[in-house]
Amino acid sequence: MPGSAGAATPATPTVADLGEHGLIARLRARVPPPPAWLAVGIGDDAAVVEPPRNQLEVLTTDVLVEGVHFDRRFSTAADIGHKALAVNLSDLAAMGAEPRSALLSLALPAALAVAEFDALLDGFLALAARHRLALVGGNLAQSPGPLVVDVTAVGAVRRRRALTRAGGRPEDELFLSGRIGGAAAGLARLQALGAALAAGDPEAEETVRRYRRPDPRVRLGLVVARNRAASACVDLSDGLADAVRQLAAASGTGAELDAGEIPVEPGARAWSERQGRDALADAVAGGEDYELLFAVPRRRRRAFLAAARLVKDTTVTRIGRLTPPGAVVLARDGRTAPLPAGFAHFGLGG
Amino acid sequence: MPGSAGAATPATPTVADLGEHGLIARLRARVPPPPAWLAVGIGDDAAVVEPPRNQLEVLTTDVLVEGVHFDRRFSTAADIGHKALAVNLSDLAAMGAEPRSALLSLALPAALAVAEFDALLDGFLALAARHRLALVGGNLAQSPGPLVVDVTAVGAVRRRRALTRAGGRPEDELFLSGRIGGAAAGLARLQALGAALAAGDPEAEETVRRYRRPDPRVRLGLVVARNRAASACVDLSDGLADAVRQLAAASGTGAELDAGEIPVEPGARAWSERQGRDALADAVAGGEDYELLFAVPRRRRRAFLAAARLVKDTTVTRIGRLTPPGAVVLARDGRTAPLPAGFAHFGLGG
Repeated sequence: MPGSAGAATPATPTVADLGEHGLIARLRARVPPPPAWLAVGIGDDAAVVEPPRNQLEVLTTDVLVEGVHFDRRFSTAADIGHKALAVNLSDLAAMGAEPRSALLSLALPAALAVAEFDALLDGFLALAARHRLALVGGNLAQSPGPLVVDVTAVGAVRRRRALTRAGGRPEDELFLSGRIGGAAAGLARLQALGAALAAGDPEAEETVRRYRRPDPRVRLGLVVARNRAASACVDLSDGLADAVRQLAAASGTGAELDAGEIPVEPGARAWSERQGRDALADAVAGGEDYELLFAVPRRRRRAFLAAARLVKDTTVTRIGRLTPPGAVVLARDGRTAPLPAGFAHFGLGG
Repeated sequence: MPGSAGAATPATPTVADLGEHGLIARLRARVPPPPAWLAVGIGDDAAVVEPPRNQLEVLTTDVLVEGVHFDRRFSTAADIGHKALAVNLSDLAAMGAEPRSALLSLALPAALAVAEFDALLDGFLALAARHRLALVGGNLAQSPGPLVVDVTAVGAVRRRRALTRAGGRPEDELFLSGRIGGAAAGLARLQALGAALAAGDPEAEETVRRYRRPDPRVRLGLVVARNRAASACVDLSDGLADAVRQLAAASGTGAELDAGEIPVEPGARAWSERQGRDALADAVAGGEDYELLFAVPRRRRRAFLAAARLVKDTTVTRIGRLTPPGAVVLARDGRTAPLPAGFAHFGLGG
């Protein structure tokens, strides 16, 4: 088994030193006791689960690739483990599903320190515990280059309650959770300032936190779906502009956003203005906010707002409406213009 | 959006030229009509499925990483697509599960030709069709280096029918499907001879085919599980030596293999002998055969053989037995010796 490069120094143990069986043993030691519905867990050829009773299942997969989706100078291993699960939970949230289980597939550089492997798992498992999601299986392989973290998440949703992108109708109102632009501004700050980030500026720190540790809106998606309070939903993995386009295209509508209503993260606004840039355009185009965008029929507005109030730590804001089939536009200062292009990870999305 | 390297030449279109939405459209055009149990398929935030009724679900994930699990000089894109699904189907087979759905997550080098992307999908989808498995979702991202193909497969198994590694008891007989050593010999041939492989030697060609296009023993696992004809099962992803150790460890037993009974692929034997090597040792240590190893209680031997006969294209061979807790040994010429070490992908497994 190959040792780490530079093994002559008093070596930090690497994942290659430990090997697959050693790493699986470490992983099993960190995973909490299995739920009753897990018949066979980590360590066999596959996991065996009792499916949710009288519910549909929701399946999603999303990968984080080093150099594309994260940079180990800007995110700790625990941040990466957190985010790899968060982006999948955000997809479950956008369907109105309750998280249940996940599989974790890691391609690890041989020289990765075992402590980093542990921290990645800890970041993943801490977020899993908050959402009562069980890690039921996975896969460990070596990578000749980047660290690759691929997660499959499985959730449950009641019949006829799943939120898709396709149910919106003209005149439905568009509601957005939270505020946007934070993650993109946080990444831009890290790229510009690196470790020299000024501490003690809470708004700036919040943008970096939003980039490193997105908070998927699982409970909001769930209560909105349970109350049939929205006609369509999508998450903002690739930014608001992309999300609105996806929802409108799937629903066969146009859309109009009101520039003055779009809630921009204060630390994102400050960063854009400091660069002499248009804060709203940056926020609308910026990716990785992992907020939810809902289409809400007008007669369901009251039900929607009541459902959203059940979720203590999230606000919702009406930012526009779906329109008859046609363009997706931004209304600003009495004029409308096409929305700026969305965000993409090196042109291929993620 | 970045073009391919060398874009001045009359360029072959690359995945970066097409972008995520273009690739997803290509993917959707290739996927056959969805089964009735698929409520929401490719193109939303997640897939929504009706779970199997009165059955348990089996979930597995396995990744192929370029430079670790495959080499694009030795395998076509279609081979890679086939194999990425095959290794997951083999895990379902080892649990006795019937394949149902899969998610496909690809991290693609920007310069990958669109034709290669198409071929990878075609290889995946052709094998999926043979096993009546539906591709229900996935993810496309860019890779800064290796091509990474991560698959999650979901199957169904009746209650109390799942085959685990842990059910074996001392005196159970060990049965192996097919023949071993082929895939490792095929890879060794490719590494030694590359494109200069002698055509017209069917035994040699069969080893290369076994390496490139493993044939998961899905139907065998299924009929054995349905007939409760085995007490334990594991697949040979990392070779026979590793599989026997895994099954014995999980079952709390030892094991003894009879060297004279182990069926070695003829083209693997020829290759080892040509190198002056011990063909049996090579075959036992070699990985990627994706055969199944079963533990069969003696009173179930007849039922096991009857079940196996239902599967036309696979033989099974008795190769040894489980023993009281202790070592895992190979009996050869009247003596026993410890089994050689198993196979591992660069020391980390896969």
